[in-house]
Amino acid sequence: MTPGPAPVHPDAVAAAVEPLPHHRAAEFKPRFAAVQQNLQAAFRTAGPVGVLASSGTGAVEAALTNLFAAGDRILVVASGKFGERWGEVAECFGMRVRSVPMSPGEVFGPDEMAEAIAAFRPVQGVVITASETSTGGALDVKALVRAARRVEPEVAIVVDAITAVGAMPVETDKWELDAVCGGSQKAFMVPPGLGFVACSPRGWDRVREARKKPRFYFDLRKYADRAADDQTPFTPATSLILELEAALRALDDAGGIKALEQNAARLARATRAAAAALGLDLLSADAPSSAVTAIRAPRSGMAPDIVAAMRQDHGVYVAGGQGELKPDIFRIGHLGYIDEVDLLGTLATLERVLSGLGHDLQLGTAVAAAAAELDSDG
Amino acid sequence: MTPGPAPVHPDAVAAAVEPLPHHRAAEFKPRFAAVQQNLQAAFRTAGPVGVLASSGTGAVEAALTNLFAAGDRILVVASGKFGERWGEVAECFGMRVRSVPMSPGEVFGPDEMAEAIAAFRPVQGVVITASETSTGGALDVKALVRAARRVEPEVAIVVDAITAVGAMPVETDKWELDAVCGGSQKAFMVPPGLGFVACSPRGWDRVREARKKPRFYFDLRKYADRAADDQTPFTPATSLILELEAALRALDDAGGIKALEQNAARLARATRAAAAALGLDLLSADAPSSAVTAIRAPRSGMAPDIVAAMRQDHGVYVAGGQGELKPDIFRIGHLGYIDEVDLLGTLATLERVLSGLGHDLQLGTAVAAAAAELDSDG
Repeated sequence: MTPGPAPVHPDAVAAAVEPLPHHRAAEFKPRFAAVQQNLQAAFRTAGPVGVLASSGTGAVEAALTNLFAAGDRILVVASGKFGERWGEVAECFGMRVRSVPMSPGEVFGPDEMAEAIAAFRPVQGVVITASETSTGGALDVKALVRAARRVEPEVAIVVDAITAVGAMPVETDKWELDAVCGGSQKAFMVPPGLGFVACSPRGWDRVREARKKPRFYFDLRKYADRAADDQTPFTPATSLILELEAALRALDDAGGIKALEQNAARLARATRAAAAALGLDLLSADAPSSAVTAIRAPRSGMAPDIVAAMRQDHGVYVAGGQGELKPDIFRIGHLGYIDEVDLLGTLATLERVLSGLGHDLQLGTAVAAAAAELDSDG
Repeated sequence: MTPGPAPVHPDAVAAAVEPLPHHRAAEFKPRFAAVQQNLQAAFRTAGPVGVLASSGTGAVEAALTNLFAAGDRILVVASGKFGERWGEVAECFGMRVRSVPMSPGEVFGPDEMAEAIAAFRPVQGVVITASETSTGGALDVKALVRAARRVEPEVAIVVDAITAVGAMPVETDKWELDAVCGGSQKAFMVPPGLGFVACSPRGWDRVREARKKPRFYFDLRKYADRAADDQTPFTPATSLILELEAALRALDDAGGIKALEQNAARLARATRAAAAALGLDLLSADAPSSAVTAIRAPRSGMAPDIVAAMRQDHGVYVAGGQGELKPDIFRIGHLGYIDEVDLLGTLATLERVLSGLGHDLQLGTAVAAAAAELDSDG
C-alpha cells in the first residue's frame, strides 16, 4: 500500500518467466507496438511514447535535456523531494533555475504560477510535479499551464507525472504539454526499470529543433524514429517490456486508464474520509493527490511507530515520511493493482495499530467512514 | 546461440517471480551487497561497480561523461558497429574525437595504437571495444593500454567490455583501466536493462576531479557513494537486480567468473576448429574473440539463408551479420549459460543446414573437429 513501487500485476509476474525474444526479432515488434498503443492511451497522446531503460529520474532528465539548452531559464515548482531534484537536474546541465519552494501542504495555484513566471521572465521552461509522492499533494496541471502561458505564451512545460499517470488524467496533447514523464513501477503495475516520455506535437517540434542540446542515450528523437518501426534505438529492457505488455492488456480488459484513475480517486476519497473519522489531519488537505494520501500521525514522533507496527505486526506496507516529515506523517498509496478490499483491510489494521499505540478510537470508525464514501458514488 | 541477449539462467528466471522488495527496505540491502561483491569479482576491482538502470550504451555514456569534459581529445578504436557508436557519444558531448577505423578482421596491435596516439597528441582518452560483437574480433586490451600509456602516460582508458566480461579476463584494477563497461544481458545471464561501470582507483579519482562535466542520472559519484550503503541513488531495476543476484550466485557455485571465461574460450576454440573442418573462413581469424565467432558463409549472399534455416527449420538462433556484412557472415555466441552439448548440437545442425543449401560436406566433420578440440585441453 505504498506509493510505489506498486504491486506487480499477476499477469506481469507470469510474463516475467516467458522465454525472452530477441529485441530485434520479428516476434518482438507486435508486442512493443501493443505497449506503445496502450502507453499512448495512458498519456493521452497520438504521438510516440519514448520507452527508456531507466528510472523515472532518467525520463525527467531526458525531457529536460531534449527540450532545453544550457542557459535556458527554467522555473521549477519544488513541491517536495522530487520537485527539488528536477531543479538539480536542470542546473547540472547549465540551465538557469528558479525554484519556487512550497511548504508541505501549501497550495500553488494559477495566481502563484502567473506571479512566479512574471518575476523570472523570460522563462523558457516550467517543470511541474503533478503528484508529489513525498507530501501527497497534487497540482492542477491544466490550470497551471494555462496561467503560465498567459504570461509567457511560448514557455515549454515538463510534467513529472511519474506518480500521477493512472491516478489522475494528464492530457499530453489536449493541454499541449511539451513532455510528460512516467515510470513503470507506479500505476503501470510492473517492476521499476522503465522510464516513459510522451510529448505533444508542439513538444516534439521543440525536441527536434536545431539547438545545441547534448544527449545521446536519452535522445528522444532516436526513440521516436525507431518507435515508428516498433523498435527501440538501444537494447531495451525486454523482459520488463513484456511484463508491461501483460499488465497493460489486463488494464485494458478492466476498463483502461480511465477506470484506473477512477479507482485511485475513489480509494483516495475513502482514505481521506477515514482519516477525518479518526480525527487525523492530512498533510495536503487543500489539494490532495489521488495517487497517495499523506496522513499526520496523532502526534509528532509517532508516525514511524505506526509504519513499523503495520509492517511488522500485520504485514501491511505503508510508507513513512521522508526527511523532516519522517516523525509526523505516514502515506497510503492508491496506485495500480489495489482495490477497495485492500484499502478497507489496511484501514482496519490502521485502527488496531493506532489503538495499540494509545490513540483513543472506536474500532470500525475509519472503515465505516471509508465504506460510506465508497458507497456514496456507487 | 547468439552473442546476446544470451540465455537467461534458470535461477534468474525463478527469481523474476519473487515478490518484489522495496528498494529502500532493509531486506534489499544484503542482496544488493551480494551483487556488488560478485560484480567486483567479474570486473576484477576492489572498488564499487555502478549498477545503472540502462542498456550498455548508457554505461558507456556514463563512462565518457564522467571521465571527460567537452573539448577533451578522445581516440576511439572503431573496430565495428559498437566502436563507431562510442565515437558518436563522445562527439555528442563536445569531445574532439579521432576514430581509427578498422576493417572487419583487421588486427589493431600495440604498434598501431602507439602510432595513432602519437598522431593525435595530446590525447585525454582512449576508447577500446574489447570484443566487437559485430565482427567477432577481440583486442588485446592489456597490450594496447601499455602501448597507449608509453606515448601518453596520463591518458584515460575506457573499455567497452559489454560482450567481453565473462568471455575474457578484463583486469580493471591491475591494468589501471579508468572505466570498464558491461551489461546484464551478456555473460551475466539475465535480461537486458542493467548497465555496469567499474573503475580502477585512478579512474575514480578522475571521476571525482573538479572539472565541468554535466551529468546527473549517470553521475557515477552518486552510484559509488550510495553503494557504500548498499543502495542505488535512483530507483533501481529491482527485479533485474534480484535476477542478477541469483545468476551470479549460480555462477559462483559453478566456479566463478574464471570458469565462465574458460568455458567461453573452449567453446570458441571448438567453433573455430569446426569452421576450419568445414572449409569456412573466419571474419576475424587473426584476433578472434572468445565471446562470439563470426564465420564467413561458403559464398556471399548465403549467410541470411543459413541463419533463417537454422532458426525456422531447427529452432537454433545464431546471429546474422550487421550492415554490409549481412550477406557474408553468421555469428555463434559463447556467452554465459551455454555448454559443450549446446555447441555440438548447433554445429551438427549447421552441417545439416549447409548440406541442405548445397555446400559439399561430410556430415559429422564439424562436430568431430570440435569434439577433438574440446578433448584436447581436458
